[in-house]
Amino acid sequence: MRFGLCGLMHITSGRRRRSLDSKLDKLDDWRRTHYSSDLSPQLDGKESVVFGWIASIRHQGNITFIILADKDGFMQITVKRDEVGEEFYEKVQRLGAHTSIGVKGVLRAISKAPNGVEMLPKEIKILSFATLNPPTSLYGRRLPSVDKRLEIRAVDLRRPAAQAVFKIRQEALKALRAHLIENGYHEVHTPKIISSATEGGAALFPLLYYNKEAFLTQSPQLYKEQLVMAFEKVFEIGPAFRAEQSRTLTHLSEFISVDVEEAYVDYRDSMNRLESMIREVVKEVSERCVNELKTLGYCLEMPQEFKRYSYDEVLDILSGLGYKLDWGEDLGSTHLSVLAEVNPSFYFIVDWPAQTKPFYIAPKDKYSKLSESFDLMFGSLEIASGGTRVSSRRLLEKRLKEKGLNPKSFTYHLKVFDYGMPPHSGFGLGFERLLMILTGQSNIRDVTYFPRDQRHLTP
Amino acid sequence: MRFGLCGLMHITSGRRRRSLDSKLDKLDDWRRTHYSSDLSPQLDGKESVVFGWIASIRHQGNITFIILADKDGFMQITVKRDEVGEEFYEKVQRLGAHTSIGVKGVLRAISKAPNGVEMLPKEIKILSFATLNPPTSLYGRRLPSVDKRLEIRAVDLRRPAAQAVFKIRQEALKALRAHLIENGYHEVHTPKIISSATEGGAALFPLLYYNKEAFLTQSPQLYKEQLVMAFEKVFEIGPAFRAEQSRTLTHLSEFISVDVEEAYVDYRDSMNRLESMIREVVKEVSERCVNELKTLGYCLEMPQEFKRYSYDEVLDILSGLGYKLDWGEDLGSTHLSVLAEVNPSFYFIVDWPAQTKPFYIAPKDKYSKLSESFDLMFGSLEIASGGTRVSSRRLLEKRLKEKGLNPKSFTYHLKVFDYGMPPHSGFGLGFERLLMILTGQSNIRDVTYFPRDQRHLTP
Repeated sequence: MRFGLCGLMHITSGRRRRSLDSKLDKLDDWRRTHYSSDLSPQLDGKESVVFGWIASIRHQGNITFIILADKDGFMQITVKRDEVGEEFYEKVQRLGAHTSIGVKGVLRAISKAPNGVEMLPKEIKILSFATLNPPTSLYGRRLPSVDKRLEIRAVDLRRPAAQAVFKIRQEALKALRAHLIENGYHEVHTPKIISSATEGGAALFPLLYYNKEAFLTQSPQLYKEQLVMAFEKVFEIGPAFRAEQSRTLTHLSEFISVDVEEAYVDYRDSMNRLESMIREVVKEVSERCVNELKTLGYCLEMPQEFKRYSYDEVLDILSGLGYKLDWGEDLGSTHLSVLAEVNPSFYFIVDWPAQTKPFYIAPKDKYSKLSESFDLMFGSLEIASGGTRVSSRRLLEKRLKEKGLNPKSFTYHLKVFDYGMPPHSGFGLGFERLLMILTGQSNIRDVTYFPRDQRHLTP
Repeated sequence: MRFGLCGLMHITSGRRRRSLDSKLDKLDDWRRTHYSSDLSPQLDGKESVVFGWIASIRHQGNITFIILADKDGFMQITVKRDEVGEEFYEKVQRLGAHTSIGVKGVLRAISKAPNGVEMLPKEIKILSFATLNPPTSLYGRRLPSVDKRLEIRAVDLRRPAAQAVFKIRQEALKALRAHLIENGYHEVHTPKIISSATEGGAALFPLLYYNKEAFLTQSPQLYKEQLVMAFEKVFEIGPAFRAEQSRTLTHLSEFISVDVEEAYVDYRDSMNRLESMIREVVKEVSERCVNELKTLGYCLEMPQEFKRYSYDEVLDILSGLGYKLDWGEDLGSTHLSVLAEVNPSFYFIVDWPAQTKPFYIAPKDKYSKLSESFDLMFGSLEIASGGTRVSSRRLLEKRLKEKGLNPKSFTYHLKVFDYGMPPHSGFGLGFERLLMILTGQSNIRDVTYFPRDQRHLTP
């Protein structure tokens, strides 16, 4: 009995490739009639055409069992030597894992097979050969390192856990977007190539735009603020770029940012929106991805109402536990770990000192050192941050200077404020960080198709 | 009687700004109860809170009529001096167009006002002052130049025609995505920062990625091909970047690309998918954007079935009309204009000479000079292109060399083909070009929030 990755041909030379190519069948007019998810014992006796890649192949006497994988799951093809004839049977003996095939045959109800049905094949097409062994096993108990898996990421993504993660990603993305559209937000796309820094000059990737210096955007912040003038409620789901020096499990150099901005509201409304959006996403994922969560062995529960701690309260909590922090300082990783023990789920930290927040965040009032700001946390992980925005040009210029930024670099943006900028508020959420929570993954690279960080510019 | 942009204060000095800021009201706990789209005569007698910017203000004796604009449309506020009192009335006299206000009052059915209802105000909050006249009028008959309008794009987007265009954009985007998701495609996000050129070295924006040279992606082509190995049917809607030298009405340096890729199908299936997707978008937009199309004075009709002309047929048509073209040449703008007269709507040009198409496009067969490729045209405008992809590594290397590209630059991508790449096909569609057709705009910059081209790096 042979199992798994047997039958792989280690062939890389041009001549061998040509010879293999000549053994391939053409797709021609074959088209799929069923995905694995369409199969059920009720289809007993029906003709069917299926496609997929071989997840495993097992030879047992004169019977070969093929487990075929398609985008929805698995199905069983049972090849009986005395039924299919010698030529067909020989062809099947050449097959190995990861090879793509098409099979025409008759479905038969059988309790032991996936979906309670197997296919008895009549014709087969070999559509690709996997000529090399993937660097990592899809079904091994130990997950190989990210670097090892990125060697052939396209194959690594066939792992059942990866399939589960990205199915959850799809449902989360749908739920996020649906929630925002249903609540009257207008989806926008703003430029990723910009002429100057959004939040200061650090952590930007410079590029050459024709003959000018330009940068990749860190966030659509200034554009989404401008767009509330014409559209009031806007959102964008798209890439943002940060030349982070951090090499951690929670940073990417290119990530998907979910940005929301709204006129005539303040940061309390933004927090409410963010909380209800996340509750909706958790609800949809836990209802629609039961099997995927099971595959991941992860229990996703609807969180309690998100607590809102003020920055001052956080300082008190930390102090009570023996961690001193000067007022106005940002929280460090030690402080965040302590807070995660106090609250391991979702919570807000609100009313940060203005000095810790970007220039566009509004102070609580004229004389206050506090700002109308929030971070959404999950344990020690920051997932989103937002706040009421400055809507006065005069104040914005003042804040820029306080931050050591040159108002001249923001000439265009400042000018817009002379034309009647309404009060507004919003937030930005790191989509991959939310996905870590939704899937229970501890490395952000595992919720990204092709991660970008200091070390990874390929694949 | 004063009308329109009266009351604007030309104030830009810091001191005057401070003095104006002090006259602004705070949002506090006021929250909107109705958008303009919620209003109807049935609300007669109801209390309401509305927000928006002043589209026009007109003083007639002791009555002031304010037309207030919000994201959904317009409403009328009628301020009667003897009902609101002197202080309130005085405050209203200071208001000008584009100023943002909040108004609390009582709704009254009245046939002449928008939505058949006006508001009789009790309290008003001035939330921003427009201190400068916008460089262009929102309601002028002649549309000012793009450059002029981009000076304050955030305000220009308040133009009724711009509002209509971007409402259609929103519906088109929703319909596109819904069509793909309903048909089993998995939404992905692939890296925009890449290490080497996708389709050759031209037209790339170089950037500095930490200490390495990198580029902005022209298309997610190679990534989406790799992803069919694990997900079979994928799509991406996201930015793509081309350092185009063309200064035309139909090119952008940063655009939204709709990319679709699928395993176990060929280019005929991709054309069917593309056609049915576009029909769905046209259907949704024409049903849901009746008013917007009216605003634009544009008639959007469901197109006939898309004709499919082969490249050879196109040459015959052109030759019959006196335009000679050598076999293998690409079509020039003159040829496309001639074709637009023959077919001003949607049509495909299929079976292009392999030499005119990128390396990843599959030849029709081993001995043919033709490829399984298509362009989707609308008159003279190319909207999408696609084809069956090469799925053999050997052939892909051969094609790279034929195109003068170095297979070594594609080492990672080529390697993936050793692990069983199924046959696959797909297309890329320029979303803004489709929007030009859906909205009847002749300049692609008018269907983009903040266009990027050789001349525009700001706003």
